[in-house]
Amino acid sequence: MSTAPRRDTYTPETLLAVAVRVFNERGYDGTSMEHLSKAAGISKSSIYHHVAGKEELLRRAVSRALDGLFAILDEQHAREGRAVNRLEHVTRRMVGVLTAELPYVTLLLRVRGNTTTEQWAMERRREFDHQVAALFKAAVADGDLRADVEIRLATRLLFGMINSIVEWYRPGGKGMDGEQIADAVVQLAFAGLRTED
Amino acid sequence: MSTAPRRDTYTPETLLAVAVRVFNERGYDGTSMEHLSKAAGISKSSIYHHVAGKEELLRRAVSRALDGLFAILDEQHAREGRAVNRLEHVTRRMVGVLTAELPYVTLLLRVRGNTTTEQWAMERRREFDHQVAALFKAAVADGDLRADVEIRLATRLLFGMINSIVEWYRPGGKGMDGEQIADAVVQLAFAGLRTED
Repeated sequence: MSTAPRRDTYTPETLLAVAVRVFNERGYDGTSMEHLSKAAGISKSSIYHHVAGKEELLRRAVSRALDGLFAILDEQHAREGRAVNRLEHVTRRMVGVLTAELPYVTLLLRVRGNTTTEQWAMERRREFDHQVAALFKAAVADGDLRADVEIRLATRLLFGMINSIVEWYRPGGKGMDGEQIADAVVQLAFAGLRTED
Repeated sequence: MSTAPRRDTYTPETLLAVAVRVFNERGYDGTSMEHLSKAAGISKSSIYHHVAGKEELLRRAVSRALDGLFAILDEQHAREGRAVNRLEHVTRRMVGVLTAELPYVTLLLRVRGNTTTEQWAMERRREFDHQVAALFKAAVADGDLRADVEIRLATRLLFGMINSIVEWYRPGGKGMDGEQIADAVVQLAFAGLRTED
């Protein structure tokens, strides 16, 4: 018994959500228009009615993650005050964006390819990393962050800790929400796990 | 012009190194005996002379990583003294094993499959995680680690930070060696990035 193709009631947003799920499951390279068509339950030509192809879907998806991240840097608490407090704010909000936009950020973190869009996404990620590293540097210069941990290394470890959350966080899961995780990350990274002497 | 197959001068160790490289490049599922044969430059039957199949290579590879990690827990500094110091020692040595056995640990961290070997490897990883979490719990009970960060979450963030090192660390690269990275991880996780007030 064959199933009739579903009527195309997709908006660009809802089609994007399906595509991102498939990209994260199969990898971007491993995903064909055929896979997307099957997952969405509409024909390939219906998909082409919405977008030029899978690379456009990738661009839209990673843009959503990148826009969320870059918007953090424009927030008042990221722009005003001591660098260390701005960095804490950015750290907390990065966890917020990651947990709120989980599939999009997951896809962004896994991009490692040769298409123009993948190269562009990696370039934008580096740009974001540099801006956060600059904040880090300013906080060290203020004497608020320790100078004995190399800035590039500390930034990598901080980002590594934050990004690792995509490996296990599932929204709506029992217990922890994004806010609690953000608190824990800020606590661990800035104050450390040890109690005060 | 076809190249003659290379004479089989592999030992189990050197063949394993080739297999792990290919597994990490293509993913374990995406690797066939054909791929392994091409990468090693010897025939499939020569590979079967060394091992029963690709699952045996996987088992040997992840065993090497797991043996390295579990050996840490038997070290004197992991068994004696205050829990917080034992945990710091384990953290430092985890970075050491990760950087020394990079391809093997990378493979272990990526295992997520349905074969018996993959299930077993994931089970062993969980067992290791539990033992470290127990140390964490003991250090909180001693009053040496803060009680306001949930233990399971803190353990995940700590492991996330350590494991993220496989994404960028390359042995013999310029600058940082495993020891410097281990120092930074311990500093960041236990003392935090902020300077003392």
